[in-house]
Amino acid sequence: MDTAVPVAPSPTVADIEAAARRLTGKAVRTPLLESPLLNDRLGRRLLVKAEPLQRTGSFKFRGAYAKMSLIPADRRPAGIVAYSSGNHAQGVAAAARLLGMPATIVMPKDAPAIKQRNTAAWGARIVPYDRYGEDREAIGAALTRESGATLVPPYDDVEIIAGQGTIGLEMAEQLAEADAEPSAILVCCGGGGLVAGTSLALSVRLPGVPIYAVEPEGFDDTARSLASGERLGNRPEARSICDALLSPMPGAVTLPINRRTLSGGLVVSDDEVRRAMAVAFETLKLVVEPGGAVALAAALSGKAPAGDGPMTVVCSGGNVDAEQFAEILRNYS
Amino acid sequence: MDTAVPVAPSPTVADIEAAARRLTGKAVRTPLLESPLLNDRLGRRLLVKAEPLQRTGSFKFRGAYAKMSLIPADRRPAGIVAYSSGNHAQGVAAAARLLGMPATIVMPKDAPAIKQRNTAAWGARIVPYDRYGEDREAIGAALTRESGATLVPPYDDVEIIAGQGTIGLEMAEQLAEADAEPSAILVCCGGGGLVAGTSLALSVRLPGVPIYAVEPEGFDDTARSLASGERLGNRPEARSICDALLSPMPGAVTLPINRRTLSGGLVVSDDEVRRAMAVAFETLKLVVEPGGAVALAAALSGKAPAGDGPMTVVCSGGNVDAEQFAEILRNYS
Repeated sequence: MDTAVPVAPSPTVADIEAAARRLTGKAVRTPLLESPLLNDRLGRRLLVKAEPLQRTGSFKFRGAYAKMSLIPADRRPAGIVAYSSGNHAQGVAAAARLLGMPATIVMPKDAPAIKQRNTAAWGARIVPYDRYGEDREAIGAALTRESGATLVPPYDDVEIIAGQGTIGLEMAEQLAEADAEPSAILVCCGGGGLVAGTSLALSVRLPGVPIYAVEPEGFDDTARSLASGERLGNRPEARSICDALLSPMPGAVTLPINRRTLSGGLVVSDDEVRRAMAVAFETLKLVVEPGGAVALAAALSGKAPAGDGPMTVVCSGGNVDAEQFAEILRNYS
Repeated sequence: MDTAVPVAPSPTVADIEAAARRLTGKAVRTPLLESPLLNDRLGRRLLVKAEPLQRTGSFKFRGAYAKMSLIPADRRPAGIVAYSSGNHAQGVAAAARLLGMPATIVMPKDAPAIKQRNTAAWGARIVPYDRYGEDREAIGAALTRESGATLVPPYDDVEIIAGQGTIGLEMAEQLAEADAEPSAILVCCGGGGLVAGTSLALSVRLPGVPIYAVEPEGFDDTARSLASGERLGNRPEARSICDALLSPMPGAVTLPINRRTLSGGLVVSDDEVRRAMAVAFETLKLVVEPGGAVALAAALSGKAPAGDGPMTVVCSGGNVDAEQFAEILRNYS
């Protein structure tokens, strides 16, 4: 499908820097965490970019605000529409509140309760849909036609990717402050916007460091697409606890970027994800949701490239229901 | 008892600044977290100093390293001895490893498993004792006599207090960055070293802001001592889930400082602490242990002074066993 786009659009590093300026004072410069005892266990340094500490509990606020702050004043009263499994929903809803815009979010009925509750608490209207039976893009398009609202897509958009890329700018600075020259960087991947933006920034700020997308088993569309050279989707019957990463195939905008910037894709099991969440609890004191823990899971389970150089992972979000988190702690600690 | 000390020793702000210089690059400058949705619930801004993200998972590393880095080179080979319920143990053990010193820690047999495990992982020798039947200070004194090791007390020490006070310096800077003029500051209190150091720094950096010690029910020795003008202890049969705050009475060094700097003491129940831990999980994505959550509990449960100005709390640590945390999430979310 991406052959239909002769030159796929991509943000430049200047776009990412401009997004970072718009986000100053709005987004949190999240810390890069490190646990010496965890380093001991791994035999190498592990540095963790802690996006659960971002406004709304995930990195998604960065892209949402970066894009929505560019909407011209005359279009703001019509508001925005977004479709999202939950983290983009909260990011968009929070950005809409800051910008004084009405927000309508198309959200799967089975999204975690914490994500639905918080999206509503930010003041957004929620339109529920069936993740496995209805087409969220069609619902979103119909809503924008009716209202004149601006659609804020979750990942396949140059300004969204630029916003997520601000993580890469911060990581490069924080790695220098921590005196760490990374030998590998692992980033969670659903539609691929986070890893596209982050890797674009890092390909300029830390050129030559191998960067990997990490996905859950059954949703390894980016890994397979990178390996095969074709844009491949996931089987519709696939299931994973990583509710934030269940996109059907790589984006038409994100995949061409990721082909240029990434060294490949890694794949982890739901069980490796649960163990990583328990390790983050114990050693980092950080709440990480399943989809936010896949890169950490790859680092902990030996899926990452071997070596003794520092490894950096993005933990992308922490919006997990208490009951699920408690169950995981009981069984994986 | 403190009448026996005509002029109780106290660190100056210059001592705290010197401790901050020694800690640069060793301790984490922990973030000041804020959740807009939590602010909505409270009707005022709440800013949370996140010491679970400190090296060893609690603020105790600050005081331990600040003090131990002053031990002269010729005394370092004999090592150090400390007594601790667990967080000071880990702080001392981590500081000893950084400074290349052997460490022996006298630790209650019922300390949380995570605290015992991590203290050993940092390379310290653990000497277990019965919290309710044996005198840890006597055991510690005997060990130092035998070995020539330096005793590193948990709170009643000028250099320890100076180290903990570095939190106050950071908070004052971070509150200015967040454009928040606090109307009240709440700090967890066991022996009183954290609140003494923090309030000393803040009394100079943010003069006039009321600061409160927060303690668990049954261990409100500082609150009662501040109110009565006498140095009062706790009943030996008192129990609380706040294992980090079970000291028998205010320190001879800390109490005179706290009399000068504090506006009073607040007291919270174990149930209010459990609820605060669940709120920190949900809104801040932060793992907080029971003793680390008392100040947050006071802020959330209406125990703090009323008003609509920003409130600041210290969450002092996050070393809680997974099973206990899971149980609390199940029942208080």
